[in-house]
Amino acid sequence: MALVNENFLRLENDYLFSNITNKKNEYEKNNPDKKVINLGIGDVSLPLASKVIEAMNKATLEMSEKETFKGYGIVQGYSFLINRILDVEYKKRGVDLEEDEVFIASGTKGDLAGIADLLSIDNKVALMDPVYPAYRDVNIMMGRTNIVYLNATEENGFTPELPKEHVDIIYLCSPNNPTGTVLTRKQLEAWVKYAKENNAIILYDSVYEVFIEDESIPHSIYEIEGAKDVAIEFRSYSKLAGFTGVRCSFTVVPKSLKIFDSKGEQVELNSLYRRRQSTKFGAAPYITQRAAEAVYTEEGQKEIKENIKYYKENAKYIKNEFEKVGFTVYGGINSPYIWLKIPKGMNSWEFFEKLLNEAAVVGTPGVGFGKCGEGFFRLTAFSSKEDTKEAVDRIIKLFK
Amino acid sequence: MALVNENFLRLENDYLFSNITNKKNEYEKNNPDKKVINLGIGDVSLPLASKVIEAMNKATLEMSEKETFKGYGIVQGYSFLINRILDVEYKKRGVDLEEDEVFIASGTKGDLAGIADLLSIDNKVALMDPVYPAYRDVNIMMGRTNIVYLNATEENGFTPELPKEHVDIIYLCSPNNPTGTVLTRKQLEAWVKYAKENNAIILYDSVYEVFIEDESIPHSIYEIEGAKDVAIEFRSYSKLAGFTGVRCSFTVVPKSLKIFDSKGEQVELNSLYRRRQSTKFGAAPYITQRAAEAVYTEEGQKEIKENIKYYKENAKYIKNEFEKVGFTVYGGINSPYIWLKIPKGMNSWEFFEKLLNEAAVVGTPGVGFGKCGEGFFRLTAFSSKEDTKEAVDRIIKLFK
Repeated sequence: MALVNENFLRLENDYLFSNITNKKNEYEKNNPDKKVINLGIGDVSLPLASKVIEAMNKATLEMSEKETFKGYGIVQGYSFLINRILDVEYKKRGVDLEEDEVFIASGTKGDLAGIADLLSIDNKVALMDPVYPAYRDVNIMMGRTNIVYLNATEENGFTPELPKEHVDIIYLCSPNNPTGTVLTRKQLEAWVKYAKENNAIILYDSVYEVFIEDESIPHSIYEIEGAKDVAIEFRSYSKLAGFTGVRCSFTVVPKSLKIFDSKGEQVELNSLYRRRQSTKFGAAPYITQRAAEAVYTEEGQKEIKENIKYYKENAKYIKNEFEKVGFTVYGGINSPYIWLKIPKGMNSWEFFEKLLNEAAVVGTPGVGFGKCGEGFFRLTAFSSKEDTKEAVDRIIKLFK
Repeated sequence: MALVNENFLRLENDYLFSNITNKKNEYEKNNPDKKVINLGIGDVSLPLASKVIEAMNKATLEMSEKETFKGYGIVQGYSFLINRILDVEYKKRGVDLEEDEVFIASGTKGDLAGIADLLSIDNKVALMDPVYPAYRDVNIMMGRTNIVYLNATEENGFTPELPKEHVDIIYLCSPNNPTGTVLTRKQLEAWVKYAKENNAIILYDSVYEVFIEDESIPHSIYEIEGAKDVAIEFRSYSKLAGFTGVRCSFTVVPKSLKIFDSKGEQVELNSLYRRRQSTKFGAAPYITQRAAEAVYTEEGQKEIKENIKYYKENAKYIKNEFEKVGFTVYGGINSPYIWLKIPKGMNSWEFFEKLLNEAAVVGTPGVGFGKCGEGFFRLTAFSSKEDTKEAVDRIIKLFK
């Protein structure tokens, strides 16, 4: 008889964000007169840049004419986009990558799942706690049970020390979701050194790099010497250019990155990933890749920087207003996430319920990201200025 | 040390179609004066319908304004599209499905991989031989080694009998890729009966259903009574509406479909698939879903039917011309694929090389789909009328 993959039965029942959306929807149904403001999910609110729209219109027109129509794309992605990425995202920061080391796709969730496919379930995985739930869930779904959690706490500034024990795979996220922390150059150097010494690999999620203001903080892990031998990097246009509804991402799998088979022979991950994508992924749409290319025009860069500035001002507003009334606030600098310390006497779901029921504001309970998130609450800077201000004012009124 | 998923090392080195593309590119490099015609990969050549273009332009405009901008979509897909699918693809054929039984995504390759995730690697899988390589490779990548091949041969009309032994998962494809065969109502009834009796599930790929002309042939497996208890259906806009470069597909996972855990308890796949998609997939783009919706307008339906007619005429031309000079030809009716019997004395890669080197025409060697494909060659009807005619004439000249 057909058997289920029982690893799925070991997941928590709901994906955190679906769960929160359901609670929000239920509240709205019962309170049709209340305007709920969502500072929960990290979704953007500003429209696409005009250069991006222009590129999409042009590409759509191409799809309407026989001479310029584009069918199946190249699995790896079109050269026109990859070459812009190599120049703007990497060469400018002193990182040399080759065209076949960058894989264009339709969002980092899929890319994280894709890379996880290539790795034996016998690897020991290190995750931070709190952590973006998809990292954990992808591993559980595949049956990778050997997971070590590294505690990110107020005491260690939400940047855990290197693991005392040996691990094979390390997920790092900087700027961090959910805590808003960034990893310094020195910290990244220590992780790369650890990975080299332990034959481990680092899965480096830097989808929020565009929020980095501090010039000493690396945007890419490949700014660290030797990282190309040990790290895969995940990047996305979702936050960079407001593509949450457009869907475009890229993953860097350097050709010098090797892992091992059970006989101790080295295996190159780059070609395996191409094989994986050929089989399980149908290439990112032509129009989407033209849209992403437009992000790298001079005007496009100007436009997206203005949008990021807008979100950063929201982040600072949230941070400042909460601090004024005595809250302890982390994140909000170099990051779109504010990691709020919840007043004593309340846990993070209680705080969530209080905000939803008494202020009609949605945020994310820290414990949803792991046990060390208990006592914290994540707010995002991606709403409109007006909604952000209104939400903060409503919450602060409850605690004055 | 970080270990590779060794299942990947058991794959053949290249994905069939990447391999063919490489050979084509090499020939073109060495013969810059020759115009290569590709009847190999199943990629469409006609541009998008004007109604689809109109919808994409409108949706792009929405993405440019704050008031109408769309960020993260609903993982399952937007209601506006799902409801059109329920009406046009199913209700019209007497099939009642509910909104939460249809999952919109970005291509059937990803959907096949997604469903495979939910199934234990201990299941015994039945594949046809020849078979679309992604079915096989997805299973191998996951370590599902218990695979039974059912031979589809000239003698059994390329429709294998039911397996003599028990199997848990059955991949069916009708109209078939690569053989161009269709499964009759009676044959499908037998498969559904087998699945019920064996607690097996059927993964039914009907992405070519729009090519069915014969009114007695089911377009959906759910036209068979009881199929909702045992079958998942895969559908796509790639061939239906020329979306190979746009990327949109849907998968039906009926709520009545149950499989088993190792204790023999029943598990509903529908909710598990939603959980899977929430974690590993970021929803299909808004613009794409509006594009697919436009396929169901009156004018859209008229336009796509004209395009399909164009490809069908290509199929018939290929079939007729080869038959005229004495070839044995299968497929080409109810299907965009022509399954050509190769003249004695040549194997299918030799035939491929001959066509490429002497006629500058690319097709697909049957053996690339499995050992029973040896002696056959797949041609597709998706090129332009002019190229199709030119390619056929060039090939036939070689064999006159």
